[in-house]
Amino acid sequence: MEEKGLLIVLSGPSGVGKGTVRKAIFDQPDVNFEYSISATSRKPREGEVHGVDYFFKSREQFEDMIANDELLEHAEYVGNYYGTPIEYVKKTLEEGKDVFLEIEVQGAKQVRDKFPDGLFIFLAPPSLKELENRIVTRGTETDELIRNRMKAAREEIEMMNLYDYVVENDRVEHACERINAIVVAEHLRRERVEKRYRKLLEEEK
Amino acid sequence: MEEKGLLIVLSGPSGVGKGTVRKAIFDQPDVNFEYSISATSRKPREGEVHGVDYFFKSREQFEDMIANDELLEHAEYVGNYYGTPIEYVKKTLEEGKDVFLEIEVQGAKQVRDKFPDGLFIFLAPPSLKELENRIVTRGTETDELIRNRMKAAREEIEMMNLYDYVVENDRVEHACERINAIVVAEHLRRERVEKRYRKLLEEEK
Repeated sequence: MEEKGLLIVLSGPSGVGKGTVRKAIFDQPDVNFEYSISATSRKPREGEVHGVDYFFKSREQFEDMIANDELLEHAEYVGNYYGTPIEYVKKTLEEGKDVFLEIEVQGAKQVRDKFPDGLFIFLAPPSLKELENRIVTRGTETDELIRNRMKAAREEIEMMNLYDYVVENDRVEHACERINAIVVAEHLRRERVEKRYRKLLEEEK
Repeated sequence: MEEKGLLIVLSGPSGVGKGTVRKAIFDQPDVNFEYSISATSRKPREGEVHGVDYFFKSREQFEDMIANDELLEHAEYVGNYYGTPIEYVKKTLEEGKDVFLEIEVQGAKQVRDKFPDGLFIFLAPPSLKELENRIVTRGTETDELIRNRMKAAREEIEMMNLYDYVVENDRVEHACERINAIVVAEHLRRERVEKRYRKLLEEEK
């Protein structure tokens, strides 16, 4: 009878403030998402706890997880592996809880392949917002600056393709509010609600 | 450059409380929707103002509007016509404003044909909510009562088919909050945002 949870994936260009927005979301008093803990092959730092900050694995263990398809997504960064264990995500979704992932754009592509039904949110940088403001200030900036910004904007727009929603990170609280609204709305989509009701009717027969 | 507005259609079984929810939405201090005024062939009542409460038309004028396809939807009720003039809706959407329609299920079907991109919200009655609660109270009610409720629930679920979202009208404020969230989310859909950005890039070339 339980409705499956939503897999919520927050991503966007590096430097856009994904981590800050994620922290603000989990600082909300009535947060309804489970945060997915990453696995890593790097050594724990002072105070980091296995199963809280990360699942700490040896390089060999991590490579076994990759080989056994036990990761939703993974990447290597400064000589260490980082990735999302698929087991926790699946288990939590089955329990009817929403899981929140905050990952790099490369990782989001891998998740899309495995969870096409996930809710993919692109956190858009101010460079895109500036694209809209620029029309107002036209003529006050150098051609090169404008060209560079246009190029960055074009690359960011191409990245969006994979996502369901785009949230501008103009202010952290504002971005959080909009992410909350997206999750509320997604739970009210007719397909989900209808499926739940039909299941109830079947069970009542 | 202006983004087109959303056509928001609130409908649901008669007696579900569509009018109450619509009034509560328009009583919000920061409401961002335009309410579409209906046309009718009935005579104005004491205090009703043309262009505020209704557009008052003669029967002949109304039938001309039907013949000329000037109505988004219409129905006859107790010998009088009621309908939504398409011109106001189109003009307001073009100005980038969201238009809110609260109409009967029959009308919603007609609107879907003309505005497939509209945002269709089904206001679900407590009978469906009860479907979920019933499992708990099973055995405490007569078979006939249960059968009748099941039949009503089944009919209501069939009606949902046309809609994008389902909102349970358990409490008016709660229904309003969820409708607000749906509209916020819909504006953040990647297709809409991406299109706007691409247009801006084109204009900047």
